Amino acid sequence: MTASENITSRPAEMTQLRQLVADDLVQVNQRILEQGQSEITLISDLAAHIIAAGGKRLRPSLTVAASKLCGYEGDRHIGLAASVEFIHTATLLHDDVVDASDLRRGAPTANAVWGNKSSVLVGDFLFSRAFQLMVADGSLDVLQILSDASAIISAGEVHQLMVSHDLGISQAVYEEVISAKTAALFAAACELGAVVADKPEWRAPLRAYGQALGMAFQIVDDALDYQASESDLGKAIGDDFRDGKVTLPVILAYAKADDAEHQFWLSSMEKGEALSPENLRRAKELLKKHNAFEQTLQVAHKFADAARDALAGFPASAAKAALLEAAEFAVGRGY
Amino acid sequence: MTASENITSRPAEMTQLRQLVADDLVQVNQRILEQGQSEITLISDLAAHIIAAGGKRLRPSLTVAASKLCGYEGDRHIGLAASVEFIHTATLLHDDVVDASDLRRGAPTANAVWGNKSSVLVGDFLFSRAFQLMVADGSLDVLQILSDASAIISAGEVHQLMVSHDLGISQAVYEEVISAKTAALFAAACELGAVVADKPEWRAPLRAYGQALGMAFQIVDDALDYQASESDLGKAIGDDFRDGKVTLPVILAYAKADDAEHQFWLSSMEKGEALSPENLRRAKELLKKHNAFEQTLQVAHKFADAARDALAGFPASAAKAALLEAAEFAVGRGY
Repeated sequence: MTASENITSRPAEMTQLRQLVADDLVQVNQRILEQGQSEITLISDLAAHIIAAGGKRLRPSLTVAASKLCGYEGDRHIGLAASVEFIHTATLLHDDVVDASDLRRGAPTANAVWGNKSSVLVGDFLFSRAFQLMVADGSLDVLQILSDASAIISAGEVHQLMVSHDLGISQAVYEEVISAKTAALFAAACELGAVVADKPEWRAPLRAYGQALGMAFQIVDDALDYQASESDLGKAIGDDFRDGKVTLPVILAYAKADDAEHQFWLSSMEKGEALSPENLRRAKELLKKHNAFEQTLQVAHKFADAARDALAGFPASAAKAALLEAAEFAVGRGY
Repeated sequence: MTASENITSRPAEMTQLRQLVADDLVQVNQRILEQGQSEITLISDLAAHIIAAGGKRLRPSLTVAASKLCGYEGDRHIGLAASVEFIHTATLLHDDVVDASDLRRGAPTANAVWGNKSSVLVGDFLFSRAFQLMVADGSLDVLQILSDASAIISAGEVHQLMVSHDLGISQAVYEEVISAKTAALFAAACELGAVVADKPEWRAPLRAYGQALGMAFQIVDDALDYQASESDLGKAIGDDFRDGKVTLPVILAYAKADDAEHQFWLSSMEKGEALSPENLRRAKELLKKHNAFEQTLQVAHKFADAARDALAGFPASAAKAALLEAAEFAVGRGY
């Protein structure tokens, strides 16, 4: 069975996960709104804006589901799920910061409205709030997990910046980058479930599950950037291409490119000539020609399988079913 | 005795503080260099650059001196002093981030070399490292003090951004801003000394000392921005004026301005026409005409006195003498 055959049988929504966490997520959202408040109106405004736009709360949902998987019945996971979402939101805000050179290349996003400086400072505030929530929880294990994840994420973001526009990077380097910038927070979000439930033996498998799930999500995201309709993805397609961000589909197509194609990729990704719709169309043709989407999805499937395998030791439960479904969804959405 | 008479009797260096902390500061610097390392070379490079340029290590020196004031003889203060310096450095990096509009107004600083995005992401990395150092220390009191300080600092930076270019702000709002963006970290740095020494009764007075000291330093900094020679200050003078940052000297001079002067300040600070050397010269003349420097220094003296008063309950020691000297220096330097 090829990756593309696989796709059609995947769930289009994470129905079980949504149902499992629905009640708790109301409390998480409440906590997020409360803790995003400040006497400084620009903080409250920008935080409310970015939090409202923040979408599906996937990471805090994982913390809630992992807690339930470990049989936890208290309420510590609420504050910690909010903390995870704040770290994610701060990362998004900081990821939107642009340089003058970027303004010449393409369009900035949220910070077009609020400005670079606001994005940075409000991100810092939310990041600090995340740590205040952890301190209020009072567990050094939690603080270690999330401070380690934060250091890994920021190092991964810097790594990504360093290899941006660099068509010479290998699949291994690409995987290192997304492991740090995306999968580390998924891993931490899941591991927290075992910590609040006081099940230290389940920290490693939950961490492994989250890590692999994050890889699968990011890889599929990177494929969707070239393939999805804009309504599916909730953002403009072709962003990575326009930003010169070298992702797995491009790495795979570039590896098989002939001389003319090499030239096309170099002029588009490294020299910033990617802006025209014709170039994006040509890029998509080349990815298709070299089966780069299918190969990319095969890699994503490998990680989704690893995520499922990591849960093998847990007894059957609604939470386990929901987390298995999330792994299916990671590789099945948007097609 | 007026503020200006006072000035001549103030110490030109913090000799006692420097001597007191010299040996420990070697270890702090070592820790800072170690922890600023990363496999990601851009992080190590930028961290080394900003850390080397970071100057006098005043905040970690305060943590060391406060620890000694409390009779502490262990080594926890080394890592925590490094943590304080990382938070400070991250703040500096994020403070350098500019918007496109700023590029039209004046010149950016460190991030002119490295770019906005690098400044943000490496700042995030150092901030995360700070929390990793606190987690390694293992005290929730420490984590609370520094996560609270971080939230206050970022809120203060946003507040400053909101009132930038606004000549209508009062002295009270100005003091709120600098209390958050500057004094909060001085207060935290000092309070840590009592925590590591396990002297909870000394947390409040050390916090009060640091808070007042930070106010005095920032107020004098804001005066020096219009007055110092560039070699004294270690940065270009007139930066605040060019950035449209409304500080205490300007607030005081604006309060006494006639119509023509009002117009001058409005066109300079709010409309961004401050760039010419003639405008800076005129601003300095107006500050002098209305005794704004002396009034500003009087406010700084009030805080320096409060800092000294906060130490009244501590027995005499070399550490106490050094901290008293720091309060003298805060209002005596650069003149």
